[in-house]
Amino acid sequence: MQTSDLFELLRDGRPRTRAQLAQVTGLARSTVAARVDVLIRLGLVAPYGDGASTGGRPPSLFAFNPGSRVVVGVDIGATHAQAVLADLSGAVLASAGAELDVASGPERVLGWVTDTVDQLLTEDRRDLSHLAAIGIGLPGPVEHSTGRPINPPIMPGWDRYDVPGHVQRRFPVPVLIDNDVNIMALGEQQAQWPSVTDLVFIKVATGIGAGIISGGTLQRGAQGTAGDLGHVRVTRADGLVCRCGNEGCLEALAAAPALAARLREAGAEVADGSQVVDLVRAGDLVAVQAVREAGRDIGEVVATLVNLINPSVVVIGGRLAAAGESLLAGIREVVYRRSLPLATEHLRIVSSVVGERAGSLGAAALAIGHVLSPEAIETASAAVGAKLAK
Amino acid sequence: MQTSDLFELLRDGRPRTRAQLAQVTGLARSTVAARVDVLIRLGLVAPYGDGASTGGRPPSLFAFNPGSRVVVGVDIGATHAQAVLADLSGAVLASAGAELDVASGPERVLGWVTDTVDQLLTEDRRDLSHLAAIGIGLPGPVEHSTGRPINPPIMPGWDRYDVPGHVQRRFPVPVLIDNDVNIMALGEQQAQWPSVTDLVFIKVATGIGAGIISGGTLQRGAQGTAGDLGHVRVTRADGLVCRCGNEGCLEALAAAPALAARLREAGAEVADGSQVVDLVRAGDLVAVQAVREAGRDIGEVVATLVNLINPSVVVIGGRLAAAGESLLAGIREVVYRRSLPLATEHLRIVSSVVGERAGSLGAAALAIGHVLSPEAIETASAAVGAKLAK
Repeated sequence: MQTSDLFELLRDGRPRTRAQLAQVTGLARSTVAARVDVLIRLGLVAPYGDGASTGGRPPSLFAFNPGSRVVVGVDIGATHAQAVLADLSGAVLASAGAELDVASGPERVLGWVTDTVDQLLTEDRRDLSHLAAIGIGLPGPVEHSTGRPINPPIMPGWDRYDVPGHVQRRFPVPVLIDNDVNIMALGEQQAQWPSVTDLVFIKVATGIGAGIISGGTLQRGAQGTAGDLGHVRVTRADGLVCRCGNEGCLEALAAAPALAARLREAGAEVADGSQVVDLVRAGDLVAVQAVREAGRDIGEVVATLVNLINPSVVVIGGRLAAAGESLLAGIREVVYRRSLPLATEHLRIVSSVVGERAGSLGAAALAIGHVLSPEAIETASAAVGAKLAK
Repeated sequence: MQTSDLFELLRDGRPRTRAQLAQVTGLARSTVAARVDVLIRLGLVAPYGDGASTGGRPPSLFAFNPGSRVVVGVDIGATHAQAVLADLSGAVLASAGAELDVASGPERVLGWVTDTVDQLLTEDRRDLSHLAAIGIGLPGPVEHSTGRPINPPIMPGWDRYDVPGHVQRRFPVPVLIDNDVNIMALGEQQAQWPSVTDLVFIKVATGIGAGIISGGTLQRGAQGTAGDLGHVRVTRADGLVCRCGNEGCLEALAAAPALAARLREAGAEVADGSQVVDLVRAGDLVAVQAVREAGRDIGEVVATLVNLINPSVVVIGGRLAAAGESLLAGIREVVYRRSLPLATEHLRIVSSVVGERAGSLGAAALAIGHVLSPEAIETASAAVGAKLAK
């Protein structure tokens, strides 16, 4: 039994005495006392009121103390960034956002990130010692183990850039990096579907991608590229050249830039995806039909995804999802027609509820998951132990 | 710290004394002694020679004892069944096989299963008390939590049949049921790719299906239908009616019966898939081309699977894989052309090495995984504890 196991026991928030912990775990009392001390020093556990009296001195109670430390979750989009300060239960304490072009490069963007972490800590009257970790989502493929973006198409200057290293020069805490769709899946699941173990979040915006949670775990795949929906080949995209260099990709047919281009050809004045959404909201028939058709095209690939992965919830998010029912209806139409009855019997296909905050909340969840992981607690415990021994 | 944690520590096979176990875990010596006793009674741990002398009486050593108990793994195919008796390390002690038509119904097929379990135990001079669990793979969708087949297309009489209940009337041990492709994935991984965490096994035979291991865990999805490659829509199958009732499924185009029908149209005398393989082996050009084309069609869907799941190994198995390089070459051709460079950079697409034994070995692995799981050990420990208290 390690210190992290003791913490797992206390994580439910119920206060317990040292004697109760010794009884439940079978650990020697002295061992329990030492490990509780370590957890208190780590800020994860705190004394809690007084234990029920057993006649003599009341025994002390201890419980998980989620408010003692904080994380920052950051979502970097193509043109916009958002950040939240959260405690270890995921409760949001402060937030910030800015227009920010990811193509302006890592120095500029990460400068905003570190300034914003400072600002959020100050806002909640926290100092550096309270900060436990930082989670960051980036709009491109990320090698999760090193936190480096790999050939990200819309992020010039970021290829294999040491993002954690840069941030850690200012904040010497664990920095976890993932791609934006993965953290959106985490954020939506934690906020809306905490008991769902098989959930796929599909982002439809400048690109199209998916974050896949299977068996309760975010699945990144062997190289971290799992969920790449956008570059699946669809027949209707035959002959269309994609920004990836290949032909026939779903993204070249159904992502926001493709829709905007098609509407321009039809005479509409649209520069980007958000204007497509504006047209749909204004009831423009051509735009509504184009978005519905994009939904059907996306639905072809989602039907395959449902056959292969068998999720119980598919969440549609991203800027184009803001067009409301048109996109969703097109996706549903094809999936319910094409996928196996057993796989769709209990399948729900829904719009993102968390919306624009899914990314930053998910990045915070990624950071919290790391801080409270057995591995991180053991490492931190060993460091505290070494300090005490000096 | 529970009894299962103590077992996890001992699972590496290295012998340890009670004192060493107490030191590593922080458990009281009396607790360690009691839990080691429980593990010995469960047959999971056994005394091991003598510990190094510390001057007085030599302390006893204990270690994981994989030979003390056995499991049976059974693979039921459409027309053939195979079974292995294995110890808790997965080492095969005895095996059996028979021609057996799954369509003859559950009573007949499970009668063979229970007779065979008896026979294998006798062969290895084991009695019922040695049998820890039975794993069974079936050629159709299975609800993993209950072990019941759900609308299995080639298994008349099996729909929602209580397979574990039937087997347990003769053998009162845990009985784990899964579909055949899932257990083949487990079997191939354990035997050939023990360190690979992201592996997909694709079976190409009468049907086409995949067993998906992501992040080291077999992924069954929300309803247990994950990996259903065969009913993904492919454009070249437009207009072809599938046995599932839908149109345009991959299976209707590229599985063994479709290939046999196409070769018959071309004038060849083929009744089933194994004769297609015979023709390919005999160098029949039409058959070779047909199998290669089937490989390309399957490759279209595998390319999507690689984009979505990002495995590092894709294993091609099943009867049609015995046609050798033709099928594999067709699949590789399309996947390496279509999937993202980052996803295919380290991707290996290979033929099954374990072949026909993958299923029964995987079923044994499924049974062993259950027996050695923390949950099963805690349940068994509690039962032993209750017995001792009487």
